Amino acid sequence: MDIEQANQSAVTRMIEARPMLTGVAAARDVIPGMHSNLLLHAGPPIAWARMSGPLRGAMIGAMLFEQLAHTEAAAIALAESGGVQFEPCHEHNTVGPMAGVTSASMLVYVVENKAGTGSTNTAYSNLNEGYGKVLRYGAYSAEVLTRLRWMNTVLGPTVGAALARSDGIDLRALIAEALHMGDEGHNRNKAGSLLFLKALAPLIAQGNGAADGQSEVLKFLGDNALSVLNPVMAACKAMTDAAHGVEGSTLVTAMARNGTDFGIRISGLPGQWFTAPAEIPVGLFFSGFSQADANPDIGDSAITETAGIGGFAMAAAPAIVTFVGGTPRDALNATLEMYEITTTEHKHFTMPALDFRGTPTGIDIRKVVELGIAPRINTGIAHKNAGVGQVGAGLVRPPMVIFEQALLAYAEKYGL
Amino acid sequence: MDIEQANQSAVTRMIEARPMLTGVAAARDVIPGMHSNLLLHAGPPIAWARMSGPLRGAMIGAMLFEQLAHTEAAAIALAESGGVQFEPCHEHNTVGPMAGVTSASMLVYVVENKAGTGSTNTAYSNLNEGYGKVLRYGAYSAEVLTRLRWMNTVLGPTVGAALARSDGIDLRALIAEALHMGDEGHNRNKAGSLLFLKALAPLIAQGNGAADGQSEVLKFLGDNALSVLNPVMAACKAMTDAAHGVEGSTLVTAMARNGTDFGIRISGLPGQWFTAPAEIPVGLFFSGFSQADANPDIGDSAITETAGIGGFAMAAAPAIVTFVGGTPRDALNATLEMYEITTTEHKHFTMPALDFRGTPTGIDIRKVVELGIAPRINTGIAHKNAGVGQVGAGLVRPPMVIFEQALLAYAEKYGL
Repeated sequence: MDIEQANQSAVTRMIEARPMLTGVAAARDVIPGMHSNLLLHAGPPIAWARMSGPLRGAMIGAMLFEQLAHTEAAAIALAESGGVQFEPCHEHNTVGPMAGVTSASMLVYVVENKAGTGSTNTAYSNLNEGYGKVLRYGAYSAEVLTRLRWMNTVLGPTVGAALARSDGIDLRALIAEALHMGDEGHNRNKAGSLLFLKALAPLIAQGNGAADGQSEVLKFLGDNALSVLNPVMAACKAMTDAAHGVEGSTLVTAMARNGTDFGIRISGLPGQWFTAPAEIPVGLFFSGFSQADANPDIGDSAITETAGIGGFAMAAAPAIVTFVGGTPRDALNATLEMYEITTTEHKHFTMPALDFRGTPTGIDIRKVVELGIAPRINTGIAHKNAGVGQVGAGLVRPPMVIFEQALLAYAEKYGL
Repeated sequence: MDIEQANQSAVTRMIEARPMLTGVAAARDVIPGMHSNLLLHAGPPIAWARMSGPLRGAMIGAMLFEQLAHTEAAAIALAESGGVQFEPCHEHNTVGPMAGVTSASMLVYVVENKAGTGSTNTAYSNLNEGYGKVLRYGAYSAEVLTRLRWMNTVLGPTVGAALARSDGIDLRALIAEALHMGDEGHNRNKAGSLLFLKALAPLIAQGNGAADGQSEVLKFLGDNALSVLNPVMAACKAMTDAAHGVEGSTLVTAMARNGTDFGIRISGLPGQWFTAPAEIPVGLFFSGFSQADANPDIGDSAITETAGIGGFAMAAAPAIVTFVGGTPRDALNATLEMYEITTTEHKHFTMPALDFRGTPTGIDIRKVVELGIAPRINTGIAHKNAGVGQVGAGLVRPPMVIFEQALLAYAEKYGL
């Protein structure tokens, strides 16, 4: 067993993946195994009984949106009765920020890995709702559901029609450019979202839709500095899935949190989750909220760090400290530390402030355990109660024990 | 004479100016003193006989565009005969990149200083043509003139109508945000141009224009990473003009080059230019060109450095070294050096990489002369022959002698 060679093979597949955003489609039409009674969620598997406030809130919202239930109480009863199924996005080639809830009729981005080497793979992500009261943070008021319906009837179709008029958007190139413009690709996607708008705007204007709708969509996309987060996450999922299942590889191919547990998946141990209780992120809080309001870590967005951006590329995004706390020097150090636990430097994602050095890429569980350095993750912070929403942003690490579990399982499987 | 107080007053006016992009209009309708036979140019005053290749080329192009002449030979004859007048943009509240040629029927951006303190002032700049063969680099082929006509009939009216539907675009806020996104505002305006597109796109989509025209304009604005350079230059002109004419101030309020001479203006010495032969920029050249092709320094764009951005804010834009040469450390050092010759740090323009320190602002001719440190300028490099266009980008400094001349004139006027 040549572990180094296996890891080299896995990380090369990750780096050379070429995720192209090619369309928008209904989840039920494209996501493998999707059906009307299935609700996908962020993170590793979890039953209703163990779900945290924001994940429950998002599930309630999705049941109302899908008209599986017509009241909050009916939704809770349905969930408790087992009348709906809950499965991880990750097990359906999908990722979603925060609660990550994705249901059958929701429109999703379609991101195809067009690397041209080996088998192709596709990843999906729901559309970003913007700020304030949003489903992904567990809010499900009328305003949240109204916005979701607008996204399904105006935003998604408009963006989908625009993409249909294009050859697709090269998300690897977009991320690379955004890293030269002060983004790190997870919590700071200002530049990426504008590059996304730049690609879409002329295509949207070519449409036959009402001028009002086009203007509204362009304003929504432009005003939301997270517009591109979901396609970027799907791109990272396409990249990390390309690296999954390499015999003998000790690389992490998913890090994901459901608000209760943190789970990781390992390339050489396909189909397994290693989980432990998620930590509570530490960061800066919006006015009126404090650390005591924070829910444990939640969301599939740590797929960005898994692919070598986000917290791993903080050196590219010194301005992010106004949002997650710390100093620009801390941001630089975060990236430098991640070189310790990764297997290589990214060929396409470079950071000007580090003399265009590639981002640390390919987390090796052997290094994590040996050095006692867990990956760094930038994250939004959800209120611990359903229905409140985002209360801040900050930094978090996975529990070290899941890397130890994974290494034990690896040793067992490969007889080392 | 309290020089420190005069400089403080001048630099405060510069920093607190609030340039708002409010419209697009024909030069003849808004620029003071504009008339059909007048061609404005970058830099200090210059006669046809002393103009360099690219400035002559641009003048020829403008004469063809205005139908003052119908052939290159007729245009040259007209220029030589004195049948057209040449005056600096700067003397008409206007700035233009590179040749900066602005003629009566060209559409220009209107930027109003809405500081609300003291007298208001307005500045103008032509529209940016994008890359390749362009008038501002001295090209005047049919393709150049066709694009100029499209800009006057489609681009300008579309953007103007969009602005008319808005409260204007706050360019100070736009520049501040772009500096947190890897721009320095002179040679790197990628983020700023996307912020400009973001502001305009929903307004453009509201228009009644043909969908084709709207799409074309959105594509042109989005694909041109210099789209916002001209409004940014007009904003800097509005800021520096607000600081001009303060009795006793030793601050520089304009740095401008016409391709032959470099000229500066001083706040406490209104109406005077101090000039000397312009240096040849040193930088990186496009494939097939070399230092030997470079024209001496040209353009009003050094108004950005005068206002505290551009070369002075290079620490915000490490990725610019791929374009102008050097290393990210050099970029950082360029900014640090400029603190030596400036009077304060900008309140609104901050740089994350320097712990959000304000950019060095308000060049003091006393410090320049005493320390022997001339301002640093990022610049495009024009081919020395008319009609070729841009051949590279790099760095340049003004000749030190003009600061010495200015200091002597100051001493004479104020009897020091």
